[in-house]
Parts: sequence; structure tokens; C-alpha cells
Amino acid sequence: MKVAVIMGSDSDLPVVEKAFSVFREYGVPFEVRVLSAHRTPDEARSFAQNARENGFGAVICAAGKAAHLAGAIAANTTLPVIGIPVKSSTLDGLDALLSTVQMPSGIPVATVAIDGAQNAALLAVQILAVSDKSLADRLFSAREAAAKKVLAKDAEISAKYHL
Amino acid sequence: MKVAVIMGSDSDLPVVEKAFSVFREYGVPFEVRVLSAHRTPDEARSFAQNARENGFGAVICAAGKAAHLAGAIAANTTLPVIGIPVKSSTLDGLDALLSTVQMPSGIPVATVAIDGAQNAALLAVQILAVSDKSLADRLFSAREAAAKKVLAKDAEISAKYHL
Amino acid sequence: MKVAVIMGSDSDLPVVEKAFSVFREYGVPFEVRVLSAHRTPDEARSFAQNARENGFGAVICAAGKAAHLAGAIAANTTLPVIGIPVKSSTLDGLDALLSTVQMPSGIPVATVAIDGAQNAALLAVQILAVSDKSLADRLFSAREAAAKKVLAKDAEISAKYHL
Amino acid sequence: MKVAVIMGSDSDLPVVEKAFSVFREYGVPFEVRVLSAHRTPDEARSFAQNARENGFGAVICAAGKAAHLAGAIAANTTLPVIGIPVKSSTLDGLDALLSTVQMPSGIPVATVAIDGAQNAALLAVQILAVSDKSLADRLFSAREAAAKKVLAKDAEISAKYHL
Amino acid sequence: MKVAVIMGSDSDLPVVEKAFSVFREYGVPFEVRVLSAHRTPDEARSFAQNARENGFGAVICAAGKAAHLAGAIAANTTLPVIGIPVKSSTLDGLDALLSTVQMPSGIPVATVAIDGAQNAALLAVQILAVSDKSLADRLFSAREAAAKKVLAKDAEISAKYHL
Amino acid sequence: MKVAVIMGSDSDLPVVEKAFSVFREYGVPFEVRVLSAHRTPDEARSFAQNARENGFGAVICAAGKAAHLAGAIAANTTLPVIGIPVKSSTLDGLDALLSTVQMPSGIPVATVAIDGAQNAALLAVQILAVSDKSLADRLFSAREAAAKKVLAKDAEISAKYHL
Amino acid sequence: MKVAVIMGSDSDLPVVEKAFSVFREYGVPFEVRVLSAHRTPDEARSFAQNARENGFGAVICAAGKAAHLAGAIAANTTLPVIGIPVKSSTLDGLDALLSTVQMPSGIPVATVAIDGAQNAALLAVQILAVSDKSLADRLFSAREAAAKKVLAKDAEISAKYHL
Amino acid sequence: MKVAVIMGSDSDLPVVEKAFSVFREYGVPFEVRVLSAHRTPDEARSFAQNARENGFGAVICAAGKAAHLAGAIAANTTLPVIGIPVKSSTLDGLDALLSTVQMPSGIPVATVAIDGAQNAALLAVQILAVSDKSLADRLFSAREAAAKKVLAKDAEISAKYHL
Repeated sequence: MKVAVIMGSDSDLPVVEKAFSVFREYGVPFEVRVLSAHRTPDEARSFAQNARENGFGAVICAAGKAAHLAGAIAANTTLPVIGIPVKSSTLDGLDALLSTVQMPSGIPVATVAIDGAQNAALLAVQILAVSDKSLADRLFSAREAAAKKVLAKDAEISAKYHL
Repeated sequence: MKVAVIMGSDSDLPVVEKAFSVFREYGVPFEVRVLSAHRTPDEARSFAQNARENGFGAVICAAGKAAHLAGAIAANTTLPVIGIPVKSSTLDGLDALLSTVQMPSGIPVATVAIDGAQNAALLAVQILAVSDKSLADRLFSAREAAAKKVLAKDAEISAKYHL
Repeated sequence: MKVAVIMGSDSDLPVVEKAFSVFREYGVPFEVRVLSAHRTPDEARSFAQNARENGFGAVICAAGKAAHLAGAIAANTTLPVIGIPVKSSTLDGLDALLSTVQMPSGIPVATVAIDGAQNAALLAVQILAVSDKSLADRLFSAREAAAKKVLAKDAEISAKYHL
Repeated sequence: MKVAVIMGSDSDLPVVEKAFSVFREYGVPFEVRVLSAHRTPDEARSFAQNARENGFGAVICAAGKAAHLAGAIAANTTLPVIGIPVKSSTLDGLDALLSTVQMPSGIPVATVAIDGAQNAALLAVQILAVSDKSLADRLFSAREAAAKKVLAKDAEISAKYHL
Repeated sequence: MKVAVIMGSDSDLPVVEKAFSVFREYGVPFEVRVLSAHRTPDEARSFAQNARENGFGAVICAAGKAAHLAGAIAANTTLPVIGIPVKSSTLDGLDALLSTVQMPSGIPVATVAIDGAQNAALLAVQILAVSDKSLADRLFSAREAAAKKVLAKDAEISAKYHL
Repeated sequence: MKVAVIMGSDSDLPVVEKAFSVFREYGVPFEVRVLSAHRTPDEARSFAQNARENGFGAVICAAGKAAHLAGAIAANTTLPVIGIPVKSSTLDGLDALLSTVQMPSGIPVATVAIDGAQNAALLAVQILAVSDKSLADRLFSAREAAAKKVLAKDAEISAKYHL
Repeated sequence: MKVAVIMGSDSDLPVVEKAFSVFREYGVPFEVRVLSAHRTPDEARSFAQNARENGFGAVICAAGKAAHLAGAIAANTTLPVIGIPVKSSTLDGLDALLSTVQMPSGIPVATVAIDGAQNAALLAVQILAVSDKSLADRLFSAREAAAKKVLAKDAEISAKYHL
Repeated sequence: MKVAVIMGSDSDLPVVEKAFSVFREYGVPFEVRVLSAHRTPDEARSFAQNARENGFGAVICAAGKAAHLAGAIAANTTLPVIGIPVKSSTLDGLDALLSTVQMPSGIPVATVAIDGAQNAALLAVQILAVSDKSLADRLFSAREAAAKKVLAKDAEISAKYHL
């Protein structure tokens, strides 16, 4: 199964790109789209309505300001939709966070941290891994590798600073 | 021309009702709909796409939490769309305010105060009055009548409290 | 009918300028003023009181911090008044947003996003278009053109990133 | 010299009333007005322009939401203007606080706490006391009396709770 | 596969209960636990480390204030973890929202709205449905049924209010 | 060594009382004072300057709004000062939290949660326990007892709700 | 009468300096002090207690973060105390604003905008002008001169931009 | 007794380093660790569980975003735990502050200002000084030295600026 990564504007690309390397690391096929809840609502709706039958297992949506994209996609599919609130020039991302996470009953959006594209991708991989033992194993191994990196930093810094 | 008043959920009715008496006062025809950006996206979109040719001059949208309704309507019509952010059980209306007002370039929503249904209706009347001299005259008279009410309160209170 | 664009201080010009190109694109005549609710209250009031008879159909007001300009203008005209909250050096625009949008009953201000001059201008055009079929048609065409731009970006980016 | 207490709406009276007893305690003459920056802008402006020659030494303004009253008064007088942000049904008073305190350069408003009518009155008395030795002495005595009340509570509670 | 619903304190039960009826509606087996990231960290950790092999497909965590529960669980499993920020007596849920959603890179938490237990459950069902056609079909049907309810309200209210 | 519990106003007593039972549980002697940074600054300062030689090992300060009490005490002693921000009628405790925690370099205040009197007392006990093995042992036992309470609730609730 | 300008740290000097030119413009004598509520509490208290008899008519206090300086001074004098919340490296000045303005009953601080040193100075001049006709006249003239500057900008910009 | 300084990520080092010089100034032995509540939960837990017997008297934890580190450590030790909320790229440190300070009853975290590493170290020294007269004396001397620095700045600046 594939994961879709949708951004509301191509200006969100620098934030969203961090997701791509996660998918490459795990070998999870992904497609990237620029679809705006407000400027191309028909294409966004059409994409969402056909996402499951087109082989997607999860949809990631990144948008800033009054970030409606994840909600608009979630309104048109019952696939898990993951929302990335994108920080823009005002309000430090709080507007996008609240617009993404405070969804009404019936239409959930799985929201990650502001600008949290890497975690959005990991969450998508975790969702696919629920029924994919091999993917689950790789998630576990990556978690261990990440821990080792922290421990290496720990060793380095604890050796350097003390009294 | 008519004004449409759309609420995202019938639970918003107590907030939205304050708009109706404004329209009755000015004799402006209005219709009321319950259309959800997330639960009935097709009906919301269809309403918006046909609003102008169906004789509407402005559309008022009331929604709470991640309030996408006004934006979803505005994405499908070039009529002026007025957004009422509705206060819900958490965050004191801030989520609905930011979700309504922080729209991206190209798709404006004319946002009024949290729970500000009366002002939303007045704004719609002001929009219709741009090309309707008689309506403009009545707005002006109502403004004068409102001022008189404040002045009467002023007389009463200034007489009552002093040293 | 003309649109007025008022800024509370000439330091708001870089934000406000984005409105001008919208008016030029639509051929909507506009005038620009520097009028402060606090430093030139008489001129602001006088402008507002005569705006309708001077041929204006809508008034856009941009101000930062305790942004009273839109409210001060709206208190003196029954024309639609559009408020642009301007971000200043502290509080990321939240002060201007709340000062502009949270108007009391009776005096609406149609508030757009922080620094949202382009949308303020578009909203003014939408208001004029309520009674101007040709303007409405151009709004619709521009919306379609904007969608095409997004779709072109979509094609470019979806071709570039995938696995 | 007198102090003026202006409220933007008679619904602010329960908050504002706490100021009256301060003035009665100090024997400072005061007048109370209901003047709205938005609904009766002409009367508000006229009051402010004549306040100094009418014998006022300070003006207190109480308003909620997009609280422009203090700023509108301050724009029309060079008397010290004291602003009381009033908490309303949404946003817990933050909107009124920012709308009152974040004034642009040139037009200060001396802002007190949300719903802080008692302190607004005390500040007005302090301002009059700058050139009134007897009033200054009474402020000092009242401060000592207030301290004694706290000390009495301290004695009572410290005796009651301990281990 | 089962879903786990963990609350940080039994005082969260009234919020969390709304999730149970969703699972009953979809026939998805679920277990409920009271495990605190701070008061029973060992049990929380142990639960998380064994969750996948114990047959869970997703874990829902509800907590208030400095809501660390979802993060603490997510740190010990690579299953999808869904966080419900719970509103407590201060700060209107903002503390729990930020503590849940702003997770560092590597450890995602799929955050839903404050007190959004129903959506948390639906999101868990959506995750299980990625590899369960029958569950996906039921989600789609439920979505249609929910739309019908809104449409019925729409018919009722649009018939009742108009001019 | 004793712990002092200071409140800025006797109206803070219902919040502060929760600390007393903690001290009684651990047999830690405590004294309670009502001392205001603003209304009785001399007594507050005098208390702080003599606190260490008067046998106190930590000072807890509870205050609301612009909560300066903890900072004012900390400015006059080098004992650990623990601040409890108290929620008042506006701003949901955020004002007291920021006024307590955001201390400048050189004068720390150990801040606990809004209205967090129980944790303030526990933190004071932890501080005394640094050099008191018996107290440290009792803290550890209490932690285990608290865990058992959660586990009992866990057993009860996990038995009751499931599918 | 003189005005005192106190800053909590010499790092606040760039903000505070804007006040000095106001005093020079009006010929109001002023003194500048660096006194910290937390680092030099005795000197701050001593200054405040003697300020009136030392010929001061108002005291301006500038501080950032948990800005207690204005409150600490106000606790020790009944002169009008004006607070300038100073923006520091986090929270955009909101901490200093709330710490300065939300004073408890009995001890007012006249708070101006974040970093609003110019307005703090003007407010001090307004306070002195209550009993100084010549100063009041100069305030009025300066207001008119400021209006003229805005009008000149208005003329320049309205001539430059239009359609 | 030693103090531990733990950071959640080595990217927090520039913030945390300010603590080291405090410990060196007071001759308090310290160790530095990189331990993540989320990426190395086992090591973090193990460290905390053994901290007291390993000779630590206090533990300082610095983390950003959903800053769970201090809480995770506090859940596994009854030593005083000091939390430093670290400002990251969004929300100006508010997320880390609330995630650190709003701890549930039973598990206190002594929270200092955002990025307040120097005060965190001072607080740790104050805690050790409760039972160490010599350390207490040095704290007192340092406080006096800091006051002298402020007084020197006061003398310099008050001589330079006045009228």
C-alpha cells in the first residue's frame, strides 16, 4: 500500500520533504500532490474519494494558517488522515495546529507537531505496519538505532562536561 | 437578493438565531441550512456552487472548533462569505476564530467576532445595501436609533451615580 | 463604485500594497489614505461619514497593535468595512486580530487574516460584484486561473517526488 | 478636579461600580457616563474634547471585546486616560486587554488589570494627588490601613494552621 | 486485533467513555486500562512493550495537564499511538494539547481534539480498517448514515426558519 | 527544619490548604502566613530575610494574577522558594503562571502547576529529604502506595469495560 | 516635579531610551535608575518610599519576563507608577505584560504597550500636566503637530496610489 | 552531593551550558547526560531510579516541545527534579513550559523560566545548601556581589541620563 503526501501549497515543500526520506528509508511507496482545500477543492475531493481504491493506506496533509486541507480530505475518505500543521509568517503555527486538530466528532485527523513531517511519515509507516510484520520489525530496529545515536551523544557529552 | 445562513451543526442554532431577527427587521429574505464541511461536504459544495444563481447575495457560515465551513463554502463560490466562529467547550472560541479568519490568499472569509451572529447579519445587510439605497437608509436610521438607546442609558446612569 | 484603502500609519504600506494590484487586476477604482483613529480622529471620522456619498462601496482598514481603525471607521459609516490586522513587533499580530475582529453588536468589521491585504481587496471586489455581473464573471475566471496554477504545480511536484 | 468614569455599555456597570466607592471613600467628585466608541462616537469625542475645560483631571474608560473606548477618548484629549479591560463571554478578557493596552506611540492609555475598576479609581486618585498633598496623605493612610487588614488575617491564619 | 484505551487517571473516565460505544458499534474488541506515565511508569512501559504481541493494533491514551501518557506509551511501542488531550481545571485543555501533540522527531503521537474520545476511537477503527475490507465498508456506511442525520436536521431547520 | 507556606491573600486559602495535609502526612513542621508582596512588602521582606535563621528549609508562596510574591520572597532569601500560581477570575491562571515562573537570572523560583499546592508541599518535602534519609524513605513508600491506588483503579476499570 | 525612569536591568536601556527624548522635548526633568525588584530589592524599596518627598511626580518602571519591578515600586509609594512591559527572548512580551498589568486590588500600575517607552513618558507628562496649564498646552500642540505629520503622509500617499 | 544535568537532545546543549559555570563557581560536582524520555526511555528510567544512591542530590532536566523529560525522571525518583523548558522553532517555548510545569498531583517538577539554565543550577545549589551552611554562605555572598553589579550600572546610567 502507498502513502499520499498532500500539501496545500508548493510553498510547504521544504517542510514536507522531510517525510520523503522516511518513506525511502522504509521502502514505502509514496506519491506527492499539491491540492488545496480552497483553491482546488474538486481535485482534493476527488483524490480523497478514490484514495482507498487507488491503493493508498494513509494520507498525509500539510497546510498552514486556517489549515483545512486535512479536514477536507478526511471528509471524503475513511482512510486514516494525518495532519501536519505548518508554521507560517504569523502566530507561530498555532492557527494551523488548532485548525487541524480540533476536528468535530465523526471526522478524525491524526495530528502531529507543527512542521512535524518526519513524524507524520513515521506514523503512516506505523499504520501500514499494523498488518505488515516485516515493516513492524524495521520500525523496531530503527527505534533501537535511534536510541544508540542518543547513547553515543550521551557518552560523548557526559565525558566532556563534569566537575 | 437573499442571504443564506449555514450552520455546521444544529447545535449552533442558539448562536445563529440572533441573525434571524436582524433579517426580519430589515425585511431581507433569508434561508437557513445545516451543512457540514466534514459530514455533508457534497451538499455544502453544491449549495455554494449554485448560491449566486439561486439568488443569494451573501452567505453566512457558523461553525465551531476547527471551523472549516466558511472556508469550504468560500472555496466554491465568489459571493462574499461571512464567517461566525462559534465558541465550543474548549479553548474559548480561539480555535474557531483562527480556523475561520486565517484564510490563505485567494479565498477570503469576512470574519466577525466569536458568536457574533448579529453582526454577521448586519454585515450581510450592509453588503446588499451597497447597491440598495433604501436598505442603506434603513441601516443609517437603525444606527441612529441604537445611538439613542445608548444615550438614554447614559442619561439614566449619569443621573444615578455621581459625587 | 470605488474602494477606499486606509492605513493607520504609513509604516503599514508594505502590507497594504498587496491590495493595490488586486484592484488594478479587476479594474476597480481605489483610493488610498493614511488616517489614524488616534492621531487624526477627525479626518478619519469625516472620511467615513462621507464615504458612501463620495462613491465608495467598501472601505478597507489596516492597522496594527490595538488596531482601532476599522472599528472607528465602521462607527461612522454603514458601508461594509473590511479590517486587516497588521503584525507588529510584538505578539505576532494577535493583538491586532482581536482588536479588529471582536467588535460589539451593531458595528461589524469584516476581518481577514493577519497581514491579509490581498484577501481584503478580493473581498471588496466580491462585495462590489454582488450587483455587478461582469465583475462576478471575472472573479470566477480568476478563481479558475488560480486553480490551474495549483494544478500545474501539482503536476510538476507529483512527477518529481515519489517512490 | 473631577474624575469621569465612562463605560462602553451599561452592561459594564457591575464591573465599573467598584470604582464609585473608591471615589466616595476619598471624597473625589466623579461623573459616570455611558458612551460608546462605536455606537455614540460623536458624543464620546465631544466629551473627550471638552473634558479638561469641564474640570476633569482624569478619565476612566471601561469596555470589553475589541475595547476601543479608552483609545477613542485618549485620541481626543491629553488628559490621562485610564483603561479597564472588561471580561466578556469569550477569550477571558484577553481581547479587551490587548485592545486597550497596545496603543500606538503618541496616544497612551494607562491600563489596569482585567475588570480592575477599583485600581482604576485608585490610579485616578493617585494622579490627582500628585498636586494635592491632603489626598496624598489619605492614600498613604489607606495603604497602611490595608496593610493592617492583611496583618490581621495573617495573625488569624498563622495561629490556626501549623504543625 | 484489539484496541487499548488507557487513561492516566480514573477521573478521565467520563471523557474516555465516549470511545467505548464506537468500538461496540463496530464490533472492535477493546480493553481499558488506568496507567499513569508518572504514578505507574513501570506498568505503563510494560504494557506498551508487549502491546503488539498481545494483539493490539492501536493504543489510545487520554491524559490532562502535562499529558505525557501518550508520549510515554509511544516511546515503548511502534504501534500507532493516539493521544486524547483532556481538559482539566485550568488553561482550557491547551496544556494537554501541546504536551500531547508537540512530540519530538522519531516518536509520533496521533493527536485528536481536546476531549475528542469519539474521534480517537474512530481513528483506531480507521487504522484497523486499512487491512480489513469489511471494517472499511462499515466506516463508509456509518459516514453515509451520519450525513443523513445532518441532512434531516437541515430539512427540519431550513423549513422552520426563513423569510 | 520547617516549611513556610505564604499566601498573598487569605482568599488563596482554599487552594493552599491542600499543602497542609501533605506536611501532616510526613510530619514536617510548617507555618502558614498571609503576606502580600504589594500590601505588606516590609513584612514579606522581613520574613524572607530571616527565614533561614528562623529554621525554615523551604518557602512556598501562593499568589494569583500578577503573582509577585514568590519572586519578592526569593529576592530576600537564598532558601529554595517554591511558587504556586493561583487561578483567579480571568485568564485561567496563565497570568500567575508566567509571573511566577519567568524569573530573571539570579533569582530562581521553583514553580509548580497552577493551583498545585499538593505538589508544592511534596517538593518541599523532597528538598528536606535530600539530607534526611528517613524522609526520603517515606517519600519512596508513599510513591509506592500511590501506585497501588492507581493499579487498583486499573483492575476495577479494566474488568468493567471491554468487548 | 521630576519623573523617574527605572529599568530592571541595563539591558532594557535600548527600549527605555525612547522615553528620554520625550522628557527633553517637554522640558520635564527626569532621572534614570537601574534598580531590580529581585537583585537590589532594598534600593528599589528605598527609592520608592522616598520618591514623593524627593520631588518625583511619577515613576516609570521597565522590566521583562516576570516583570515585578513596577509592582514592587508601586507597593512602596502612592505616586502614580507607570509600567513598561519589555519583550525578551521568549513569549513575545506576553509574560511581562501580564506580570505588569494584572495587579491585585489596592496597588495599581498604569501599564502601557509592550516596549512602549515613548507612551510611558507621554503618560507621565500628561499626569504632571493635570496641574500644569502650560504643559497641558504643549501636549495639545504636540498632538496637533503629530496629526499634521500624518496628514502630510496622507497627502503624499493618496496622491501616489490610486486607480 | 552531585547534581545531574540531563538534556533530552544534544541540540539543547547551548541552553544547558549556562548551568555548568554556576556549578563551577560554587564548586558543586555535576554530571551531564543526554537521555531522552522518548528515544532512550529505559536509560532515563534507570538513571532516575538509581540517582539518589549514586550520590545525586538534585536532577536538572532540559527539554523542548512536548517536554516530558523532567516528568519522566520525576516519575522514577523522589529527588527534587528541576525542569528547564527549552524554546524550539515553534510556539516560543510555551509548549515546553506547559509540558514541564503542569504536572499531576504526586509528581512535582520544580520548573524555572524558559531557557533558564542558570536559575536551574542556582536552584539546585540552593537545595544542596539547605543542609550545607558553607554553600548557603556563598549563595548569600554571590547575591550581594550581584547586587553590587546592578548598583554599579545604576551609578553609571543615572549619571549619564537626566535632565
